[in-house]
Amino acid sequence: MLNYRNELDKMPSYDGVEKNYRIKVNANESTLSLPPLVEERVINRLASLAFNRYPNAEYYSLVGQIAENFSVESSQVLLGSGSSEIIEKVFHAFGGAGHKVVYPQPSFSMYKIYAKAAEAEGVPFDLDEKFNLNVDDFIKKIRAVNASLAVVCNPNNPTGNALTLEQVEKIAASIDCAFLLDEAYVEFYGRSAVNLVAKYPNLIVARTFSKAYGMAGARVGYMIAQSEVTRMINKTFMPYHMNVLTLAAADIVYQMRDEFIPRLQMIIAERNRMFERLKKLSGVEVFPSEANFILFRLKKAEELKNYLESLDIGIRYFSPGAFGLKNCLRVSIGTQFENDEVFSAIKNFLEIGQ
Amino acid sequence: MLNYRNELDKMPSYDGVEKNYRIKVNANESTLSLPPLVEERVINRLASLAFNRYPNAEYYSLVGQIAENFSVESSQVLLGSGSSEIIEKVFHAFGGAGHKVVYPQPSFSMYKIYAKAAEAEGVPFDLDEKFNLNVDDFIKKIRAVNASLAVVCNPNNPTGNALTLEQVEKIAASIDCAFLLDEAYVEFYGRSAVNLVAKYPNLIVARTFSKAYGMAGARVGYMIAQSEVTRMINKTFMPYHMNVLTLAAADIVYQMRDEFIPRLQMIIAERNRMFERLKKLSGVEVFPSEANFILFRLKKAEELKNYLESLDIGIRYFSPGAFGLKNCLRVSIGTQFENDEVFSAIKNFLEIGQ
Repeated sequence: MLNYRNELDKMPSYDGVEKNYRIKVNANESTLSLPPLVEERVINRLASLAFNRYPNAEYYSLVGQIAENFSVESSQVLLGSGSSEIIEKVFHAFGGAGHKVVYPQPSFSMYKIYAKAAEAEGVPFDLDEKFNLNVDDFIKKIRAVNASLAVVCNPNNPTGNALTLEQVEKIAASIDCAFLLDEAYVEFYGRSAVNLVAKYPNLIVARTFSKAYGMAGARVGYMIAQSEVTRMINKTFMPYHMNVLTLAAADIVYQMRDEFIPRLQMIIAERNRMFERLKKLSGVEVFPSEANFILFRLKKAEELKNYLESLDIGIRYFSPGAFGLKNCLRVSIGTQFENDEVFSAIKNFLEIGQ
Repeated sequence: MLNYRNELDKMPSYDGVEKNYRIKVNANESTLSLPPLVEERVINRLASLAFNRYPNAEYYSLVGQIAENFSVESSQVLLGSGSSEIIEKVFHAFGGAGHKVVYPQPSFSMYKIYAKAAEAEGVPFDLDEKFNLNVDDFIKKIRAVNASLAVVCNPNNPTGNALTLEQVEKIAASIDCAFLLDEAYVEFYGRSAVNLVAKYPNLIVARTFSKAYGMAGARVGYMIAQSEVTRMINKTFMPYHMNVLTLAAADIVYQMRDEFIPRLQMIIAERNRMFERLKKLSGVEVFPSEANFILFRLKKAEELKNYLESLDIGIRYFSPGAFGLKNCLRVSIGTQFENDEVFSAIKNFLEIGQ
């Protein structure tokens, strides 16, 4: 018997090929790849890259751009392989035996796993039945358990609702521990807390290129915090954790980020249109969303998921054990055509199925 | 004060922009980017990628190719962001409080850091003055400290020498703990231990695209072990740790790996030529190499490094504290033109400098 790390056998494994669907609205991905103008410049840049050298200048070029955009120092920005790696490393940095991480539930299901991987104790805090976070009680909980890290996804995945910046600030101001704000979907909301970082030495904002910029496959995210915090979290990253293809592609995308504004507006408009249409369906409870997806509840959620799969439409269904998400489905916003087809299928299911 | 993970403040940080040199022979990179035929197909493949979807099929396509090449099951192969990530995760999987990792010194300087990051105790085992590993004593040491992991880099970086496959097998057969064989440079040696994996359930072989395939910038490596071992180590990887650009590029490179044979032969021939030339210089002790670099020792190593830098040639100098490497320099093998220029500069330094 090999002598593995303590408790490693209890960690879940993540292999398994995910299914491809004709309409894939199950993973909150952007339904569109890069805008043609951007794609052309990305490919040109990739074609001129030296693959054989360890990445270096490309890392700092992207960091510099991000820092300039937010008027922070370059030393306040760290890049990761998606905000996933940022979150993993922040959990690690504040984890270890006896350390506690508090996060709302339901929220991004990986927080629990990241806490376990960091050998910290994950402490979930229940949202109310409308998925609102009671900020005062959340603060009390963080203090009561003497947490080393509090985490909030804003807007929240998978519920779609968001805290106001005043609520975010209240949390940052009221707790002594680190506060990770996961803004994976913030471009669809429009209210980032990055500007609060200057005021709150415990605040860490995580952002990603995966959603608004349609770069989920390229794996690029970043965090912004005060320099003393990034200096410490940087210690958890091994050298050369970012690759030059991703860095060069993201550098172009970030330069050309204005090209993404029309599609952001399209997604937001489509989300609002989908929300209004779903709301009119009897037997369906729809939750307001500030993100690129919508959560809704209906009695026959599992049957609807199966029905949509039979039409080669992939939607997110939550296992019965997922806290607060009984009979819930989450649908990512696609193109107008995709949303129409998904909506028609849902409507059709309700008409024939009940 | 934020409540960081215990001992995190003692971890080194890795920021800092590395210098670019006119001739860069300090990092064991391939001096050539992809062969033109390969590059063309890589860029075509990148141009047809969907950046917006989380990577999935691309991971398993590359795993399948590697498994087929080595006649192992796909379940025996894991990919990482360079063999760096493979090594990091293997150390993590066998690390934790009270666990010990034994590795020779001098060897890859990161083993010490990976052990620290894994919260394991790093136990170095001294090579002799010719940098040979006494295999029997190494086995005794591993047993004596009750290690959870033993690590050998073969051929060894930065010394260049290699264990025979019989020596590798003897270690695998004689220890109960996990045995990570880091074969980053094995293509320049030609004797991989992958075929021993079927026989030894403790053997883990790490390989990389960074050296022989000139893909250091793309960050892709892999490990091969028995399925029960990969199943456990896979638990230390977070979902989507590999990106689709790297996966697609590596998939093409691996399909076309025969295109790299001529340049491998060139590097080996140039290494042997450089070795013979350096050997003739008086005051220089050269160590035989099976890798894409050569280690040599001379009294004025630091002065030579500075002289080469003044000519915009980057070479690897080891800090005076590095075990066994006093007055040593490591030069990566470049093109014939680069090697000639480096050699002339060294020769010139010796003639004018002593």
